[in-house]
This record gives sequence, structure tokens and C-alpha cells, in this order.
Amino acid sequence: MNFRSDNNAAIAPEILQALIDVNAAASARAYGDDEWSKKLDERFSEMFEHDVRVFTVASGTAANAIALASATPPWGAILCHREAHIERDECGAVEFFGGGPKLTLLDGANAKVTLAGVEAAVSNNWGDIHSPKLSALSISQATERGTVYAPEEVAALGALARKHGFAFHVDGARFGNAVAALGCAPADISWRAGVDLLSFGATKNGAMAAEAIVAFDPKFAEAIERRRKRAGHLMCKGRYPAAQLLAYVESGLWLKLAGRANDLAKRLGDAAEGYLSAPVQANQVFIIPGAENIARLKAASVEFYDWGAKGSGEARLVVSWNTSEVDVEAMRDLLASLR
Amino acid sequence: MNFRSDNNAAIAPEILQALIDVNAAASARAYGDDEWSKKLDERFSEMFEHDVRVFTVASGTAANAIALASATPPWGAILCHREAHIERDECGAVEFFGGGPKLTLLDGANAKVTLAGVEAAVSNNWGDIHSPKLSALSISQATERGTVYAPEEVAALGALARKHGFAFHVDGARFGNAVAALGCAPADISWRAGVDLLSFGATKNGAMAAEAIVAFDPKFAEAIERRRKRAGHLMCKGRYPAAQLLAYVESGLWLKLAGRANDLAKRLGDAAEGYLSAPVQANQVFIIPGAENIARLKAASVEFYDWGAKGSGEARLVVSWNTSEVDVEAMRDLLASLR
Amino acid sequence: MNFRSDNNAAIAPEILQALIDVNAAASARAYGDDEWSKKLDERFSEMFEHDVRVFTVASGTAANAIALASATPPWGAILCHREAHIERDECGAVEFFGGGPKLTLLDGANAKVTLAGVEAAVSNNWGDIHSPKLSALSISQATERGTVYAPEEVAALGALARKHGFAFHVDGARFGNAVAALGCAPADISWRAGVDLLSFGATKNGAMAAEAIVAFDPKFAEAIERRRKRAGHLMCKGRYPAAQLLAYVESGLWLKLAGRANDLAKRLGDAAEGYLSAPVQANQVFIIPGAENIARLKAASVEFYDWGAKGSGEARLVVSWNTSEVDVEAMRDLLASLR
Amino acid sequence: MNFRSDNNAAIAPEILQALIDVNAAASARAYGDDEWSKKLDERFSEMFEHDVRVFTVASGTAANAIALASATPPWGAILCHREAHIERDECGAVEFFGGGPKLTLLDGANAKVTLAGVEAAVSNNWGDIHSPKLSALSISQATERGTVYAPEEVAALGALARKHGFAFHVDGARFGNAVAALGCAPADISWRAGVDLLSFGATKNGAMAAEAIVAFDPKFAEAIERRRKRAGHLMCKGRYPAAQLLAYVESGLWLKLAGRANDLAKRLGDAAEGYLSAPVQANQVFIIPGAENIARLKAASVEFYDWGAKGSGEARLVVSWNTSEVDVEAMRDLLASLR
Repeated sequence: MNFRSDNNAAIAPEILQALIDVNAAASARAYGDDEWSKKLDERFSEMFEHDVRVFTVASGTAANAIALASATPPWGAILCHREAHIERDECGAVEFFGGGPKLTLLDGANAKVTLAGVEAAVSNNWGDIHSPKLSALSISQATERGTVYAPEEVAALGALARKHGFAFHVDGARFGNAVAALGCAPADISWRAGVDLLSFGATKNGAMAAEAIVAFDPKFAEAIERRRKRAGHLMCKGRYPAAQLLAYVESGLWLKLAGRANDLAKRLGDAAEGYLSAPVQANQVFIIPGAENIARLKAASVEFYDWGAKGSGEARLVVSWNTSEVDVEAMRDLLASLR
Repeated sequence: MNFRSDNNAAIAPEILQALIDVNAAASARAYGDDEWSKKLDERFSEMFEHDVRVFTVASGTAANAIALASATPPWGAILCHREAHIERDECGAVEFFGGGPKLTLLDGANAKVTLAGVEAAVSNNWGDIHSPKLSALSISQATERGTVYAPEEVAALGALARKHGFAFHVDGARFGNAVAALGCAPADISWRAGVDLLSFGATKNGAMAAEAIVAFDPKFAEAIERRRKRAGHLMCKGRYPAAQLLAYVESGLWLKLAGRANDLAKRLGDAAEGYLSAPVQANQVFIIPGAENIARLKAASVEFYDWGAKGSGEARLVVSWNTSEVDVEAMRDLLASLR
Repeated sequence: MNFRSDNNAAIAPEILQALIDVNAAASARAYGDDEWSKKLDERFSEMFEHDVRVFTVASGTAANAIALASATPPWGAILCHREAHIERDECGAVEFFGGGPKLTLLDGANAKVTLAGVEAAVSNNWGDIHSPKLSALSISQATERGTVYAPEEVAALGALARKHGFAFHVDGARFGNAVAALGCAPADISWRAGVDLLSFGATKNGAMAAEAIVAFDPKFAEAIERRRKRAGHLMCKGRYPAAQLLAYVESGLWLKLAGRANDLAKRLGDAAEGYLSAPVQANQVFIIPGAENIARLKAASVEFYDWGAKGSGEARLVVSWNTSEVDVEAMRDLLASLR
Repeated sequence: MNFRSDNNAAIAPEILQALIDVNAAASARAYGDDEWSKKLDERFSEMFEHDVRVFTVASGTAANAIALASATPPWGAILCHREAHIERDECGAVEFFGGGPKLTLLDGANAKVTLAGVEAAVSNNWGDIHSPKLSALSISQATERGTVYAPEEVAALGALARKHGFAFHVDGARFGNAVAALGCAPADISWRAGVDLLSFGATKNGAMAAEAIVAFDPKFAEAIERRRKRAGHLMCKGRYPAAQLLAYVESGLWLKLAGRANDLAKRLGDAAEGYLSAPVQANQVFIIPGAENIARLKAASVEFYDWGAKGSGEARLVVSWNTSEVDVEAMRDLLASLR
């Protein structure tokens, strides 16, 4: 049983079929000048109920780093949660793409940034030429702890970002899981809540390698395009990532896949009641059953990641779009047996 | 008729099938820890008759920039031809990845670097703390003018690079076309000729988005791995690029596809005899029939790039792995009519 | 009365005289090839009882950033205290010079890094390709809170750094104050304690603009030299910074000046007994008399910096090499009146 | 006899005196908040007959690199002469400060950029997303060959820069020599001719270590300030560089010193008539008397740099503000003897 990560999963059949279909054309112009790529802006603008620009890249790390580098000067600092993917899991990508900005780390339960956390960071910065210039706020939706921000929480952070002159970015590697969980419009937790830039993930939820930077303001476009090119993320055969993304959002496939994973995760969460280390709000389940129980799960051939500092006795279970019900039921039994 | 670039072509059926096959596994470990990715080093080591390390990335720009950044200090300078892809077509990717090294540009007929050109650049550098430190030599094989370096030419450049302490890199976006044209072993124009690092391209010759950095010395491995991760080029679903590359080299598919394109290009070249602006040695044809003839080709709905400075009356025609013989014959007629 | 910072003070007469003397030569070779610059390595090697290489730069920020960039890969992380100068006061210089490494922040009383703090950071890092690579430890001596590390504390940190493969750097903007306070040999809190690189400050203690990177291992030399040149910190008229540094260490001037400032700071500290916010161990005094008292000091025309977060009621008083005894006495009276 | 470089010369007595005078104040606020630093903008604005912002830095390399980095995106390219100091003598400083822009090199007699050279570079750039974005033009005044651009030449380049949307920068390490040679107003070869940013040098003409970035448009100010801080070029004891610059421009000292050097250089040039390799228009003399004569000069204990590629038989002689007439006469005799 593999609960390591949703990035272990295969590609959804609808997306594979889209790749097969788009391959029928013997040739297509390169670098986004093909018919599929050209549909992206329009299709996403409809979905977001707002004129947006969409830039495909090959990974979530690239999406986050290019977006943030385009909204922060090299002498800037980006506020984010201490557990953010950009801090812990991208080997300094933001610092690389941005010419050396800082990440200023915030505390907050369940990997969520709080208004007070932002204000404390502002107050702790000298605000002069010697200090990094606080210039952007980045949150993950869903978070690295599988939790989600409600639309009004995003909006409150957005308003605070605006007040301080920060760009507001959302790492949406699991944006679909968040939207499915909240049952809201994509707009409600993006531009309507003050978000400037969104890393819109598809890879973890059924695509092969397709992520999009969604810019809600065209002023970011030139920097994103140039940085993408320079980083080798402007694919010459642009029809393939475009086809993935079009199939992903077509007929709500993305929300169907994410919703299913969320539901199964909830079922795991119910079975782990009592030793959950974070509320189960999307497709991830964090448990802290202790080192002995962790070992027992491993002995049962469950694949997953230990979490927290070494020896913390904590674990993360991730449900993918294609995790089988059989595996979920078997895992529920195992989890129930740990209590 | 599309002779714009080999990157306009669809994916070869064998490679598409490999993607379909590899997708059958419901889950596979991420970030190169899957069974397909793990075969790459061995498979390429056989093919190169040398222990190599292989690092997949999503684009040739990334392959070149990560390889060169891993072999040059930020204060270094990389010698390359004035028409090199890294100079003209990658929007400064090497400078970005490498922390600001310089490219020192060399002249040479048919986009080929010469021994004398390298020596002149060495002689023109002060050689002190104030000058950029000449630290690497990069050539394209096949070149940006569709020519190829013979094994002994590569070896002579390799020996010169060694003498001056330069790392030696080959941009092999069209490496398959070069090997097919030369009829040599891949080793003959790589490590046996003193090459340290190779950008091994597959995308232009039938893959979707799969390039590999081949390191002939393991000392480069850590820097390449870290830079790849940081740049968002370590794909989480590593089985897909791996599957493309495995299918690409399986049973010599890469040489079959490249050889076919080369042959068709030769046929175009024959038809353009008299106004070729470079010898046709791989899958590209450079012609200089004058502005009027260029306009005539465009009027005939041929897609291609103008070449050289604005108004030069020069053009580039690229044959892809799947260019039809019908198109080639039609194009031959057009070319013959220009004389 | 100016207790803002020791960088507000004039130049010590001995150092000014050295500048006048060295100016007598109508010409001298540039870029460190003059007779004064050439004495630096030898003079510092004697002082440190170890073969060292000395690289002058124009500011402490440059010294720290060049030293750390030369000991950390761009994908590295440097452990330092949350209040470190490199984190709070240099506008991201280390990130700039180093190509985007991270600073990983440690807690610890009185701005001192602890062994436990280092171990916790190590334990909190995944230790894989996705995490920044922990690669250096940097401490300030004296610290940003005016405290000092005893030789055995430095040695314990040095041993821990070695164990984890970290380079060990000391920001010694106030190194003279630390040595004077500890009464130890410079070697005792540098190479003998495992320090690899030292930013040796002189500007805050009587020089005009002269700091030195001291490398205890020659392997760092090339990177430091190149980075210094590239950053515009290799002065063409090298005799002037060299003369400052030679005069500074001649006959122990540096320790005399630092010792005097330390002694006066202690006298201020005695007067502030009861509301000190850090022990007075060098030339800085941190007090937390509350917002009202802070306002009272300002009304008395005392110049100093508020400290901590906005409204913390804390202040920093710095004694310079040339602060007058009259001012110190007047300040003592004011401080005593706050109780 | 030392004709190596004007950066070998001592400090002018007026400037040394200014340092002594400014040191009389026991304390002064740091980081440019002192009374001398605060005079710079006004004093330079008068001199340039235009509202300017002045930013002192410690070296010409820093001035050039900070100015250009503030006027070019990382994906930009800066047009400059093939022999420019930023290309050959600063070890890639512009690339470092700017996050990896390119320098696009132009030909032109006597190290002068021409209108045709600029147009050719524009025409040679694809002008699309793949090409570096041509974004700035940088010239040296006086040039690396000791020549000067007349006001109308600067203005023509300025107009061309404007037309193409380039920022226009002047490397004025020897700006005083140019103004003295031309007998024009500083404005005539700066903002009136379309210059946006000037590296205003003083070190080579009598200062210790004082260069200024002069911004003719306030829009550059924030980037310059932040980059200066981050690079360690914001001196804490700002009164010392400020005092140097104030003394330097006071009563036209800079033009007096530069004019004297220019005049003496002319006298050397007259003696070298017939084997000059560039016209003598400022304080540098380029001769090409052949390898044997070069050796003869060295045997006569003349200090100077060989020039051009190795073995070119060319040499550079630089006259400093304090080169003695005795040395000039002796050198004239030597030069005359070479014919």
C-alpha cells in the first residue's frame, strides 16, 4: 500500500488520452504558439471568472519560484509558514530564481499562516535600508499539513498583504483538493481574496508533469515569461503540457479526482481519531501514533513518510486520485488497530 | 509544409507507447526512485561504453545550463561559438544558472569552433584576477548550422581544453543526428574525445520532453543533482521522462529516426545546390537564395525561419523525424525552381 | 551624547597618521601589490600564531558575505542566530554573494548560538536532495547582544561543526572587543577552536573603512579573491586599507581601544543594574527600562537605538573607542535615575 | 618611472586634508546620515545643472555594476565596446550584480562605440523571448584607449539608446579627464546627451577610494540604494568618502588635476608620434613600437602595461595627477629614441 505521496500516482486516463489525441497532429508550432496552448488563457479565465494569464511549467517548484521571483526584488523577503514547501522541500529554488531574497518564517497551527504572525514579522523588521524588504506573502492551499484556508481567511490575509504592499502568492500544488474541500469557486480563494499569483498544480492530482502559474494581473507577465524561458521551463512542444491542463479542467475532472481523494482521506482520518496531529481537510492525513506504531505500520508494508523531526513518532499518509478503496479499507483496519 | 524546426514534430509512436506502458503501474516512487529511472545509468553506460551518470531534465536549455553551471565558477568564462544556442537562444540561461559567468564568443565557419579560435581567446584574456577565468569550452554537435565535428576534430578540441584546464561540454540537442551522420560510436565524440559533460537531446528527435545530462565523470554529480532540484527540473513522476529516454535508445530508435531526417535533409540540400550557405551534414539545410526567393517560399505556404541578421536573404529548413517524403519532394521542386 | 553605534566614531589618531604616512609615496603598485598590503599575511599570521591569508574589504557586510559565499554552495544553508547581523542588518548580502543560500535561524539566550540549537536544526532538516544542504555555521563574536563566547564555547561549536561537515565562520565586526574581554589569544577563539574563516573588523574600533577576511585554510583563497574582485572590494589603492590594518594591530592598538570601550560599557552596565536585558561583556549595553524611560532618555538628547520589536521598551547603548569619560559619567547618572 | 596606471598615484593633498578635517568630529551619524554625505546631492546637482542623486561606493567596479544592474533585468543584455572595462577588467562584476545579464560586444576604432555598431547588434538579436533583451548601452568616457566622445557623439548615442528603449550608462572612471579634455560642461556629456546613469570616478584622479553613481533620474534610486547596501558598499563611516568627493569637486580641483595629467600625456604623445596606436585625447598614451622597443623601455626601468593580445608589441602609458614633469621629460627622451 502506497500512501507516500500523491506524486507517486499514475496519470489519469482522461489526461493520457489527451496526450494521445494531441499527438495526432504531425506538427505544431513550438513554444506555446500551438492551438492548445493558445486556449489556456481563455479556458482559465472562464474558470476563474477573471482575465488571467497562464504559464505552464514542468514542476511545482518552478511554478512557485518563478512566480515569487517575479513579485519580489532580490533584496526582498517573502513571508511564509515555517513548514512551507518553498522553505523545506525545494532546495532553495526561490532564492535561486529570485537572486537571493529571504524567506521570513512564520509560526501557526496546522501549517497555516495567521494575521498575527504576519504582523509580528512586520514589527520585527527594522524597516530600513539594512533590513530585507518585506515584499510578498506566500501561503499553501491546501497546506503542508493537509489543512485548508477558508475563503474569508484568505481574504483577510489578502487584505493584510495589500495594506503592507506585499504581493500575495498561493502555492496551489494541491489547489484542486482545496477547492473540492471548500466547495467554493476558484475565484473565492484567489483573486477575489486578493491573490496576485497562483501556482496551480495538476501533477499531484492526475497529470504527468503540468503546473501553471496563473497571474491575476498582467503586470507580472513579462518577468514570468522571461524567467520561465531562462530556466528551461518554456517547453518547445507546448501542446503536451497544454493538453494535460485542458483535460484536467475539462468537465471538472480536477475536482472529481480531488474530491475522491479527499473523501478517502477523511475515511482514513476517522479511523485514526485520537492520534491525528492535524485535522483532515483535504487528501493528507497526519498521525502521531508513536514510534512503535510507526514501526508496526512499516512492518505491514505500508509506504509513507515519517514526519516532523527525527524520532517524532509522527507520519504522513497521502491519498491519491487513484488510491484504491481496497487499500483505504485495509489501511483503516491497520489504523484502528493502533489505538 | 513545416520546416520550421524539429521541435514542431509529434512524438514517435514507440515513445508514446512507452508512456502508455509505464502508466500501467498505479503508483511508483517519486523523484527518480522508480524502476525505469534506475535503469538509465546502466543503459546509457552500455551505450557509451563508459560508466556514466544520467540526469533527466525537461528541456535542452536546462541541460546546457545545469551542465555548464556545474563545471564553471561564477567568475568563469565559457568559450563557445558566436552562433551557439547557449548564446543566442536561451535568454541567458547559462548566466542565470551559473551565477553570472560570461560566454566568450568565438568565430569559425559553419558555426564550428576552431583550435585557433580557442587559442586566440586564451591569448586575449589577461589571465589575472581582473579577467573572467576561462574555464570551459562548449560546442554544439550537430551545430547550429547543421554541420558536424568529426571524431578527430572533437578530440583535438578536447585535448586543447584539457591543456588549458577547461571543462569540455557538448550541446547535443541534435546528438543523434550527429552520431547518425558520422556513423561513429557515441563514445567517439564524447568521453573518448575528452568530453566531460553532454547535453543528450531526445525531444527534437521524437520525444515529448526528455533531455539528459550525461556526466562522464562522477565528480559533477552532486552539483548537477542539486542544481536540477533547485531549478524545478527534478520531475516527481520520474518514470515518464525515463520511459521516453529508454524507448528512445532502445534498439537504436534514436539513430533510425535521426538517420532518416538526415537523409531527407540531404535530398533537400541537393535540390538547393548553388545557394546553400552551409554544407548539409545532418538534418538542417541553410540556404541563401535572396530576399525575393524567400518571399516566394513563404507565398507557397512553406513554414521556416529566416536566418542571420534581418534582411540577410537567408533561411533555415529543418527536417524532422516524421517529415513526410511527400513534403520533401514538394520542397525539392520549390528549391529547384529558385535557381 | 552619542551612544548610537561604534561606527559613529572618528578614526583613531594612530590610524589617521598611518594614512598620512603611507601617502608619502608618490606611487605604489595597485591591487595589493604594494609593500604594505604584502605585509598583511605575515603580520596576521604572527598575531594568530598560524599561517593565514588576509583579504581586505571595505565593509563588514562584504567580509561576512564573501567569506560565507566562499564556504557554502548556492544550495547550502548557513546556521546562525536569529539576531545575527547577517540575518537582520545586511539586506540579504549573504544570499546575494552566495547565489541564494538560506540562513537557518537558531534561538539562544543573549544572541548566542547553542549546541542544542545546532542539533535541533540538523534534526529538522530532511537531509535529502530536496532540503537545503546545511553547510556552514556562523556566529558573532562579540554577539549582537554584546555578549562573548568563551574559548571553550567556541571550541565546542567548532567540534560540532566539524562533526556535521560545516564550515565555521565568525563575524568578528567586534572581534577586538571579544579578545579584550576574554583576555585570550586571538588563536583561542579562532583556528584553535575550529574556526575556518573570520571577518576581522577594524572600522567599528577606530579605522576608517578596513575589514579583513582571515582564512585559516588556504583552500578558500581563490574563491575569496575572485568574489572580492567581482564585488568591487579589491581596492586599487590597496595601501590605504593595508595601512589602516597594520596600524590597528601594531603594538596592540586594537586591544587597547577595545579594552577601553569595554571598561566604559561595564560602568554603564553597573549603573543600569536591574534593568539590563543582557549581561555586559563587551562594549554594548542593552537595557529594558520601559517605553517611558526610553522617552526620558531621548528627551535628555541621548542618541541611541531602540531595540527589539517596535514598542518593546528596550534600548541599545554602544560605547566607542573614543567615547568620553564625561559622557559616560553623565550617562551613568541618567541610567541611575531610571531605577 | 611609473606609468602603469593612474590608480598607482597617492592622494591629492587637498583630499587628504579633507579627511583630516572631517575626522575632527568625535562622532557622526552612520550610513550617509552625516552632514557631509548630505551635501553631496546638492553639490553635484549644481555641478551637473540638474537634480541628481549621488551614491558613493568604494570602487569603480562597484559603481559600474550597481548602476547597470539597476537599469537592466537579469535577462537583459548590455551593449558595450569589446574593450570596455566592464567586459575585460572587472571579473564579471556586472553579471554578478545583475543576476546574469549578458554583455553584447561592439567593435569600433579607438575603443569607441559607434552608431552603426549599436544598430548591427540590434539587427543581430532575434528580438523574441529566446534572445537576451537588449536593455542598456554603456560607454566609457574617457575610453579604455584614452580617447573621448565629443558631446555630439554622446548625444547621438543617447538618442539611439532612447529610440531602442535602452538605459544609457557612462563609465566615467576618468570622467574628469574627459571633461577637462573637452572643455565642456559636465551636463553636456551626461544628461543633456541622454545619459541616465554615470559612474563618476575620483580614485584615479587623486582620491583614496571614492566613486559615485550619479543618477539623473530618481527612478533608479531604490534599486541602487538596496544593491549598494547588499554589496557592502554603503560605508558606515560615510563622512570619509563624502569628504573626498566634496574636496574633489570643490573649486574645480578635479578638472585641475585631470587637465594637468592630460597635458603631460599630450607631451608624451608628441614624442611618440609615428607609433601611437590611438590618438592621445586624455591622460593615456597607447604606443605600438614593437616587441624589441617594449623590451628596451622595460630595461630602462619604466613601469607600464603591455597591451593587446600577448606579443602584440603594444604598450599603455598612463599619466597620473601627480606624475612629475621630470619623469615626463625623461620618458619623452626615451620615446623619441625609439623611432
